[in-house]
Amino acid sequence: MKQIDPETARRHKTKMERRKAVQDAEVAEKTVEKGLLIVNTGPGKGKSTAAFGLALRMLGYGKRVGIVQFIKGAWHAGEKHALAVFGDKVAWYAMGEGFTWETQDLTRDIAAAERAWAKARELMADPSFGLVILDELNIALRYDYLNLDEVVRDLATRRDDLHVVVTGRNAKPALIEAADLVTEMGAVKHHFTAGVKAQKGIEF
Amino acid sequence: MKQIDPETARRHKTKMERRKAVQDAEVAEKTVEKGLLIVNTGPGKGKSTAAFGLALRMLGYGKRVGIVQFIKGAWHAGEKHALAVFGDKVAWYAMGEGFTWETQDLTRDIAAAERAWAKARELMADPSFGLVILDELNIALRYDYLNLDEVVRDLATRRDDLHVVVTGRNAKPALIEAADLVTEMGAVKHHFTAGVKAQKGIEF
Repeated sequence: MKQIDPETARRHKTKMERRKAVQDAEVAEKTVEKGLLIVNTGPGKGKSTAAFGLALRMLGYGKRVGIVQFIKGAWHAGEKHALAVFGDKVAWYAMGEGFTWETQDLTRDIAAAERAWAKARELMADPSFGLVILDELNIALRYDYLNLDEVVRDLATRRDDLHVVVTGRNAKPALIEAADLVTEMGAVKHHFTAGVKAQKGIEF
Repeated sequence: MKQIDPETARRHKTKMERRKAVQDAEVAEKTVEKGLLIVNTGPGKGKSTAAFGLALRMLGYGKRVGIVQFIKGAWHAGEKHALAVFGDKVAWYAMGEGFTWETQDLTRDIAAAERAWAKARELMADPSFGLVILDELNIALRYDYLNLDEVVRDLATRRDDLHVVVTGRNAKPALIEAADLVTEMGAVKHHFTAGVKAQKGIEF
Protein backbone atom coordinates (compact mmCIF):
# COMPACT_ATOMS: atom_id res chain seq x y z
CA MET A 1 0.00 0.00 0.00
CA LYS A 2 1.03 3.59 -0.68
CA GLN A 3 2.63 5.13 2.45
CA ILE A 4 1.73 8.60 3.79
CA ASP A 5 4.02 10.45 6.20
CA PRO A 6 2.38 11.89 9.35
CA GLU A 7 2.97 15.54 8.34
CA THR A 8 1.21 15.06 4.97
CA ALA A 9 -1.65 13.27 6.71
CA ARG A 10 -2.01 16.10 9.25
CA ARG A 11 -2.00 18.83 6.57
CA HIS A 12 -4.59 16.89 4.60
CA LYS A 13 -6.82 16.65 7.67
CA THR A 14 -6.64 20.41 8.36
CA LYS A 15 -7.40 21.23 4.73
CA MET A 16 -10.36 18.86 4.64
CA GLU A 17 -11.75 20.20 7.93
CA ARG A 18 -11.78 23.68 6.39
CA ARG A 19 -13.34 22.36 3.21
CA LYS A 20 -16.08 20.58 5.14
CA ALA A 21 -16.94 23.79 7.03
CA VAL A 22 -17.35 25.65 3.70
CA GLN A 23 -19.39 22.76 2.28
CA ASP A 24 -21.71 22.61 5.30
CA ALA A 25 -22.27 26.37 5.21
CA GLU A 26 -23.16 26.19 1.53
CA VAL A 27 -25.63 23.35 2.09
CA ALA A 28 -27.26 25.23 5.01
CA GLU A 29 -27.91 28.25 2.75
CA LYS A 30 -30.06 26.20 0.41
CA THR A 31 -33.55 25.74 1.73
CA VAL A 32 -35.95 25.77 -1.24
CA GLU A 33 -37.59 22.51 -2.32
CA LYS A 34 -39.38 22.53 -5.66
CA GLY A 35 -39.96 20.54 -8.76
CA LEU A 36 -37.11 21.26 -11.16
CA LEU A 37 -37.20 21.92 -14.87
CA ILE A 38 -34.07 20.15 -16.08
CA VAL A 39 -32.66 20.48 -19.60
CA ASN A 40 -30.02 18.06 -20.96
CA THR A 41 -28.68 19.46 -24.21
CA GLY A 42 -25.48 19.64 -26.29
CA PRO A 43 -23.93 17.48 -29.00
CA GLY A 44 -22.45 14.82 -26.68
CA LYS A 45 -23.82 11.52 -25.44
CA GLY A 46 -25.81 11.04 -22.27
CA LYS A 47 -28.71 13.49 -22.62
CA SER A 48 -31.45 10.85 -22.70
CA THR A 49 -29.35 8.31 -20.82
CA ALA A 50 -29.00 10.67 -17.84
CA ALA A 51 -32.76 11.27 -17.94
CA PHE A 52 -33.33 7.51 -17.69
CA GLY A 53 -30.81 7.35 -14.85
CA LEU A 54 -32.91 9.96 -13.04
CA ALA A 55 -36.00 7.85 -13.73
CA LEU A 56 -34.26 4.95 -12.00
CA ARG A 57 -33.47 7.13 -9.00
CA MET A 58 -37.10 8.33 -8.74
CA LEU A 59 -38.37 4.76 -9.02
CA GLY A 60 -36.02 3.82 -6.18
CA TYR A 61 -37.97 6.25 -4.01
CA GLY A 62 -41.30 4.78 -5.13
CA LYS A 63 -42.34 7.69 -7.37
CA ARG A 64 -44.07 7.21 -10.75
CA VAL A 65 -42.25 8.27 -13.90
CA GLY A 66 -43.84 9.33 -17.19
CA ILE A 67 -41.89 9.32 -20.45
CA VAL A 68 -42.94 10.92 -23.73
CA GLN A 69 -40.69 10.33 -26.72
CA PHE A 70 -41.06 13.17 -29.21
CA ILE A 71 -38.90 11.91 -32.03
CA LYS A 72 -37.24 8.56 -31.82
CA GLY A 73 -40.00 6.00 -32.16
CA ALA A 74 -37.72 3.01 -32.30
CA TRP A 75 -34.90 3.94 -29.90
CA HIS A 76 -34.45 3.21 -26.21
CA ALA A 77 -35.62 -0.40 -26.64
CA GLY A 78 -33.20 -1.53 -23.89
CA GLU A 79 -34.39 1.01 -21.33
CA LYS A 80 -38.01 0.36 -22.21
CA HIS A 81 -37.58 -3.36 -21.67
CA ALA A 82 -35.72 -2.85 -18.38
CA LEU A 83 -38.27 -0.34 -17.06
CA ALA A 84 -41.11 -2.81 -17.76
CA VAL A 85 -39.96 -4.51 -14.53
CA PHE A 86 -41.44 -1.56 -12.63
CA GLY A 87 -44.95 -2.20 -13.99
CA ASP A 88 -47.37 0.73 -13.85
CA LYS A 89 -44.81 2.85 -11.98
CA VAL A 90 -43.56 3.73 -15.47
CA ALA A 91 -45.83 5.15 -18.18
CA TRP A 92 -44.03 5.19 -21.54
CA TYR A 93 -45.42 6.91 -24.62
CA ALA A 94 -43.45 6.63 -27.86
CA MET A 95 -45.24 9.34 -29.84
CA GLY A 96 -42.48 10.13 -32.34
CA GLU A 97 -42.38 8.76 -35.86
CA GLY A 98 -38.59 8.42 -36.04
CA PHE A 99 -36.06 10.98 -37.16
CA THR A 100 -37.13 13.67 -39.61
CA TRP A 101 -34.89 12.15 -42.27
CA GLU A 102 -36.67 8.83 -41.83
CA THR A 103 -40.24 10.09 -42.08
CA GLN A 104 -39.49 12.71 -44.79
CA ASP A 105 -42.98 14.03 -44.15
CA LEU A 106 -43.30 17.42 -42.44
CA THR A 107 -47.08 17.28 -41.95
CA ARG A 108 -46.84 13.90 -40.27
CA ASP A 109 -43.93 15.08 -38.05
CA ILE A 110 -45.92 18.10 -36.88
CA ALA A 111 -49.02 16.03 -36.17
CA ALA A 112 -46.91 13.54 -34.15
CA ALA A 113 -45.29 16.37 -32.15
CA GLU A 114 -48.69 17.89 -31.37
CA ARG A 115 -50.04 14.55 -30.16
CA ALA A 116 -46.91 14.10 -28.04
CA TRP A 117 -47.33 17.53 -26.46
CA ALA A 118 -50.98 16.77 -25.61
CA LYS A 119 -49.77 13.59 -23.89
CA ALA A 120 -47.05 15.55 -22.04
CA ARG A 121 -49.68 18.00 -20.73
CA GLU A 122 -51.81 15.10 -19.58
CA LEU A 123 -48.92 13.50 -17.65
CA MET A 124 -47.86 16.84 -16.13
CA ALA A 125 -51.42 17.35 -14.84
CA ASP A 126 -51.56 13.88 -13.26
CA PRO A 127 -50.40 14.14 -9.60
CA SER A 128 -49.37 10.48 -9.51
CA PHE A 129 -46.17 11.35 -11.42
CA GLY A 130 -43.04 12.61 -9.62
CA LEU A 131 -41.01 12.94 -12.82
CA VAL A 132 -41.93 13.44 -16.47
CA ILE A 133 -39.27 12.97 -19.17
CA LEU A 134 -39.88 14.81 -22.45
CA ASP A 135 -37.37 12.99 -24.61
CA GLU A 136 -36.11 14.91 -27.67
CA LEU A 137 -38.61 17.72 -27.14
CA ASN A 138 -35.78 20.10 -28.10
CA ILE A 139 -35.78 18.61 -31.61
CA ALA A 140 -39.51 19.23 -32.02
CA LEU A 141 -38.96 22.83 -30.86
CA ARG A 142 -35.94 23.36 -33.05
CA TYR A 143 -37.88 22.46 -36.20
CA ASP A 144 -40.84 24.57 -35.04
CA TYR A 145 -43.15 21.58 -34.89
CA LEU A 146 -44.51 23.10 -31.69
CA ASN A 147 -45.12 26.66 -30.55
CA LEU A 148 -42.21 27.56 -28.24
CA ASP A 149 -44.16 30.13 -26.18
CA GLU A 150 -46.97 27.69 -25.49
CA VAL A 151 -44.57 24.91 -24.51
CA VAL A 152 -42.59 27.17 -22.13
CA ARG A 153 -45.82 28.51 -20.63
CA ASP A 154 -47.18 25.00 -20.03
CA LEU A 155 -43.89 23.96 -18.42
CA ALA A 156 -43.75 27.08 -16.23
CA THR A 157 -47.32 26.64 -14.98
CA ARG A 158 -47.03 22.95 -14.13
CA ARG A 159 -47.51 21.56 -10.60
CA ASP A 160 -44.95 22.94 -8.07
CA ASP A 161 -43.69 19.52 -7.03
CA LEU A 162 -43.23 17.98 -10.48
CA HIS A 163 -39.72 17.42 -11.86
CA VAL A 164 -39.49 17.57 -15.65
CA VAL A 165 -36.49 16.62 -17.81
CA VAL A 166 -36.29 17.89 -21.39
CA THR A 167 -33.66 16.32 -23.65
CA GLY A 168 -32.25 16.96 -27.11
CA ARG A 169 -29.62 19.08 -28.85
CA ASN A 170 -29.96 22.79 -29.46
CA ALA A 171 -32.22 23.72 -26.57
CA LYS A 172 -33.97 27.03 -27.31
CA PRO A 173 -32.79 30.06 -25.26
CA ALA A 174 -36.33 30.62 -23.92
CA LEU A 175 -36.37 27.08 -22.53
CA ILE A 176 -32.92 27.50 -20.97
CA GLU A 177 -34.15 30.74 -19.42
CA ALA A 178 -37.15 28.95 -17.89
CA ALA A 179 -35.10 25.98 -16.62
CA ASP A 180 -33.64 25.43 -13.14
CA LEU A 181 -30.83 23.09 -14.19
CA VAL A 182 -29.22 23.00 -17.63
CA THR A 183 -26.41 20.64 -18.59
CA GLU A 184 -24.57 20.81 -21.90
CA MET A 185 -23.22 17.42 -22.90
CA GLY A 186 -20.06 18.09 -24.92
CA ALA A 187 -18.54 15.46 -27.23
CA VAL A 188 -14.83 15.38 -26.33
CA LYS A 189 -14.21 12.14 -28.19
CA HIS A 190 -16.51 9.80 -30.05
CA HIS A 191 -15.90 6.21 -31.15
CA PHE A 192 -17.97 6.71 -34.34
CA THR A 193 -15.05 8.73 -35.71
CA ALA A 194 -12.86 5.63 -35.20
CA GLY A 195 -15.20 3.48 -37.31
CA VAL A 196 -16.90 1.80 -34.36
CA LYS A 197 -20.57 1.11 -35.05
CA ALA A 198 -23.60 1.81 -32.87
CA GLN A 199 -23.84 -1.11 -30.46
CA LYS A 200 -26.70 -2.76 -28.61
CA GLY A 201 -26.62 -1.69 -24.98
CA ILE A 202 -24.63 1.46 -25.71
CA GLU A 203 -26.40 3.44 -28.42
CA PHE A 204 -29.75 1.65 -28.37
CA MET B 1 -53.14 21.94 -36.32
CA LYS B 2 -50.33 23.88 -37.95
CA GLN B 3 -50.81 23.98 -41.76
CA ILE B 4 -47.99 23.27 -44.23
CA ASP B 5 -48.24 24.39 -47.86
CA PRO B 6 -47.47 21.74 -50.52
CA GLU B 7 -44.27 23.45 -51.76
CA THR B 8 -42.76 23.57 -48.23
CA ALA B 9 -43.69 19.94 -47.70
CA ARG B 10 -42.07 18.94 -51.02
CA ARG B 11 -38.83 20.85 -50.29
CA HIS B 12 -38.70 19.27 -46.83
CA LYS B 13 -39.07 15.80 -48.36
CA THR B 14 -36.21 16.37 -50.86
CA LYS B 15 -33.92 17.72 -48.14
CA MET B 16 -34.66 14.80 -45.83
CA GLU B 17 -34.12 12.24 -48.63
CA ARG B 18 -30.63 13.71 -49.15
CA ARG B 19 -29.99 13.71 -45.43
CA LYS B 20 -31.05 10.08 -45.11
CA ALA B 21 -28.64 9.07 -47.90
CA VAL B 22 -25.75 10.79 -46.07
CA GLN B 23 -26.82 9.19 -42.79
CA ASP B 24 -27.05 5.69 -44.28
CA ALA B 25 -23.62 6.03 -45.91
CA GLU B 26 -22.10 7.09 -42.59
CA VAL B 27 -23.64 4.16 -40.75
CA ALA B 28 -22.41 1.71 -43.41
CA GLU B 29 -18.82 2.90 -42.91
CA LYS B 30 -18.82 1.85 -39.28
CA THR B 31 -18.21 -1.84 -38.86
CA VAL B 32 -16.16 -2.34 -35.69
CA GLU B 33 -17.85 -3.86 -32.62
CA LYS B 34 -15.93 -3.68 -29.36
CA GLY B 35 -16.28 -3.02 -25.69
CA LEU B 36 -16.01 0.72 -25.16
CA LEU B 37 -14.12 2.64 -22.52
CA ILE B 38 -16.49 5.51 -21.78
CA VAL B 39 -15.56 8.54 -19.66
CA ASN B 40 -18.21 10.94 -18.29
CA THR B 41 -16.46 13.98 -16.89
CA GLY B 42 -16.90 17.75 -16.47
CA PRO B 43 -18.41 19.99 -13.78
CA GLY B 44 -22.06 19.51 -14.80
CA LYS B 45 -24.70 17.08 -13.64
CA GLY B 46 -25.40 13.70 -15.20
CA LYS B 47 -22.00 11.94 -15.14
CA SER B 48 -23.04 9.13 -12.80
CA THR B 49 -26.71 9.44 -13.74
CA ALA B 50 -25.92 8.72 -17.40
CA ALA B 51 -23.83 5.73 -16.31
CA PHE B 52 -26.83 4.36 -14.41
CA GLY B 53 -29.01 5.00 -17.46
CA LEU B 54 -26.58 2.87 -19.48
CA ALA B 55 -26.84 0.17 -16.78
CA LEU B 56 -30.60 0.18 -17.30
CA ARG B 57 -30.14 -0.23 -21.05
CA MET B 58 -27.71 -3.15 -20.59
CA LEU B 59 -30.09 -4.81 -18.13
CA GLY B 60 -32.83 -4.46 -20.71
CA TYR B 61 -30.76 -6.70 -22.96
CA GLY B 62 -30.22 -9.24 -20.17
CA LYS B 63 -26.57 -8.39 -19.51
CA ARG B 64 -25.07 -8.23 -15.99
CA VAL B 65 -23.83 -4.89 -14.67
CA GLY B 66 -21.13 -4.36 -12.06
CA ILE B 67 -20.81 -1.08 -10.14
CA VAL B 68 -17.88 0.00 -7.98
CA GLN B 69 -18.28 3.27 -6.10
CA PHE B 70 -14.86 4.80 -5.44
CA ILE B 71 -15.85 7.78 -3.34
CA LYS B 72 -19.43 8.37 -2.41
CA GLY B 73 -20.30 5.71 0.13
CA ALA B 74 -23.72 7.07 0.95
CA TRP B 75 -24.91 8.41 -2.41
CA HIS B 76 -27.02 6.79 -5.13
CA ALA B 77 -29.41 5.30 -2.57
CA GLY B 78 -32.31 5.70 -5.01
CA GLU B 79 -30.58 3.95 -7.91
CA LYS B 80 -29.32 1.20 -5.62
CA HIS B 81 -32.80 0.55 -4.33
CA ALA B 82 -34.30 0.55 -7.84
CA LEU B 83 -31.60 -1.73 -9.24
CA ALA B 84 -32.26 -4.27 -6.46
CA VAL B 85 -35.28 -5.28 -8.56
CA PHE B 86 -32.87 -6.88 -11.03
CA GLY B 87 -31.47 -9.27 -8.39
CA ASP B 88 -28.06 -10.78 -9.14
CA LYS B 89 -27.99 -9.12 -12.57
CA VAL B 90 -26.55 -6.14 -10.68
CA ALA B 91 -23.47 -6.39 -8.46
CA TRP B 92 -23.02 -3.20 -6.44
CA TYR B 93 -19.92 -2.44 -4.38
CA ALA B 94 -19.84 0.78 -2.37
CA MET B 95 -16.13 0.83 -1.57
CA GLY B 96 -15.73 4.57 -0.93
CA GLU B 97 -15.72 6.12 2.50
CA GLY B 98 -17.51 9.32 1.50
CA PHE B 99 -16.02 12.54 0.17
CA THR B 100 -12.46 13.43 1.13
CA TRP B 101 -13.75 16.36 3.22
CA GLU B 102 -15.96 13.94 5.17
CA THR B 103 -13.31 11.33 5.99
CA GLN B 104 -10.47 13.86 6.54
CA ASP B 105 -8.14 10.87 6.60
CA LEU B 106 -5.76 10.44 3.66
CA THR B 107 -4.46 7.01 4.68
CA ARG B 108 -8.01 5.67 4.96
CA ASP B 109 -8.99 7.23 1.60
CA ILE B 110 -6.03 5.59 -0.16
CA ALA B 111 -6.73 2.21 1.41
CA ALA B 112 -10.39 2.45 0.33
CA ALA B 113 -9.39 3.38 -3.24
CA GLU B 114 -6.98 0.46 -3.43
CA ARG B 115 -9.65 -1.98 -2.24
CA ALA B 116 -12.06 -0.51 -4.78
CA TRP B 117 -9.56 -0.95 -7.62
CA ALA B 118 -8.98 -4.59 -6.63
CA LYS B 119 -12.76 -5.09 -6.83
CA ALA B 120 -12.89 -3.33 -10.21
CA ARG B 121 -10.20 -5.69 -11.57
CA GLU B 122 -12.16 -8.66 -10.27
CA LEU B 123 -15.37 -7.54 -12.00
CA MET B 124 -13.53 -6.72 -15.26
CA ALA B 125 -12.09 -10.26 -15.28
CA ASP B 126 -15.50 -11.88 -14.75
CA PRO B 127 -17.03 -12.69 -18.18
CA SER B 128 -20.57 -12.62 -16.78
CA PHE B 129 -20.50 -8.80 -16.81
CA GLY B 130 -21.35 -6.81 -19.94
CA LEU B 131 -20.79 -3.43 -18.31
CA VAL B 132 -18.73 -2.26 -15.35
CA ILE B 133 -19.28 1.23 -13.91
CA LEU B 134 -16.33 2.75 -12.03
CA ASP B 135 -18.15 5.56 -10.29
CA GLU B 136 -15.99 8.54 -9.27
CA LEU B 137 -12.77 6.76 -10.22
CA ASN B 138 -11.62 10.12 -11.64
CA ILE B 139 -11.65 11.58 -8.11
CA ALA B 140 -9.43 8.76 -6.79
CA LEU B 141 -7.03 9.39 -9.71
CA ARG B 142 -7.07 13.14 -9.30
CA TYR B 143 -5.94 12.89 -5.68
CA ASP B 144 -3.32 10.27 -6.64
CA TYR B 145 -4.94 7.64 -4.43
CA LEU B 146 -4.22 5.19 -7.25
CA ASN B 147 -1.38 4.84 -9.73
CA LEU B 148 -2.64 6.30 -13.02
CA ASP B 149 -0.39 4.18 -15.26
CA GLU B 150 -1.52 0.95 -13.60
CA VAL B 151 -5.18 1.91 -13.82
CA VAL B 152 -4.94 2.84 -17.52
CA ARG B 153 -3.00 -0.36 -18.27
CA ASP B 154 -5.60 -2.52 -16.49
CA LEU B 155 -8.39 -0.77 -18.39
CA ALA B 156 -6.60 -1.11 -21.74
CA THR B 157 -5.94 -4.82 -21.27
CA ARG B 158 -9.45 -5.77 -20.18
CA ARG B 159 -11.65 -8.22 -22.12
CA ASP B 160 -12.44 -7.07 -25.69
CA ASP B 161 -16.21 -7.23 -25.25
CA LEU B 162 -16.47 -5.43 -21.91
CA HIS B 163 -17.91 -1.91 -21.77
CA VAL B 164 -16.56 0.22 -18.92
CA VAL B 165 -17.85 3.63 -17.79
CA VAL B 166 -15.61 5.85 -15.66
CA THR B 167 -17.22 8.87 -14.02
CA GLY B 168 -16.06 11.94 -12.09
CA ARG B 169 -14.77 15.45 -12.69
CA ASN B 170 -11.28 16.24 -13.95
CA ALA B 171 -10.57 13.07 -15.91
CA LYS B 172 -6.82 12.65 -16.38
CA PRO B 173 -5.48 13.25 -19.93
CA ALA B 174 -4.01 9.71 -20.05
CA LEU B 175 -7.45 8.25 -19.34
CA ILE B 176 -9.09 10.45 -22.00
CA GLU B 177 -6.39 9.30 -24.41
CA ALA B 178 -7.17 5.64 -23.68
CA ALA B 179 -10.96 6.11 -23.91
CA ASP B 180 -13.25 5.49 -26.89
CA LEU B 181 -16.01 7.89 -25.87
CA VAL B 182 -15.54 10.95 -23.69
CA THR B 183 -18.36 13.30 -22.72
CA GLU B 184 -17.83 16.55 -20.84
CA MET B 185 -20.89 17.51 -18.81
CA GLY B 186 -20.92 21.30 -18.66
CA ALA B 187 -22.95 23.21 -16.06
CA VAL B 188 -24.87 25.85 -18.01
CA LYS B 189 -27.21 26.65 -15.14
CA HIS B 190 -27.59 25.16 -11.68
CA HIS B 191 -30.46 25.49 -9.22
CA PHE B 192 -28.07 25.47 -6.22
CA THR B 193 -27.09 29.01 -7.17
CA ALA B 194 -30.78 29.97 -6.78
CA GLY B 195 -30.87 28.60 -3.22
CA VAL B 196 -32.63 25.35 -4.11
CA LYS B 197 -31.44 22.48 -1.94
CA ALA B 198 -30.35 18.97 -2.96
CA GLN B 199 -33.55 16.97 -3.31
CA LYS B 200 -34.40 13.30 -2.94
CA GLY B 201 -34.80 11.76 -6.36
CA ILE B 202 -32.72 14.44 -8.07
CA GLU B 203 -29.38 14.74 -6.30
CA PHE B 204 -29.49 11.53 -4.29
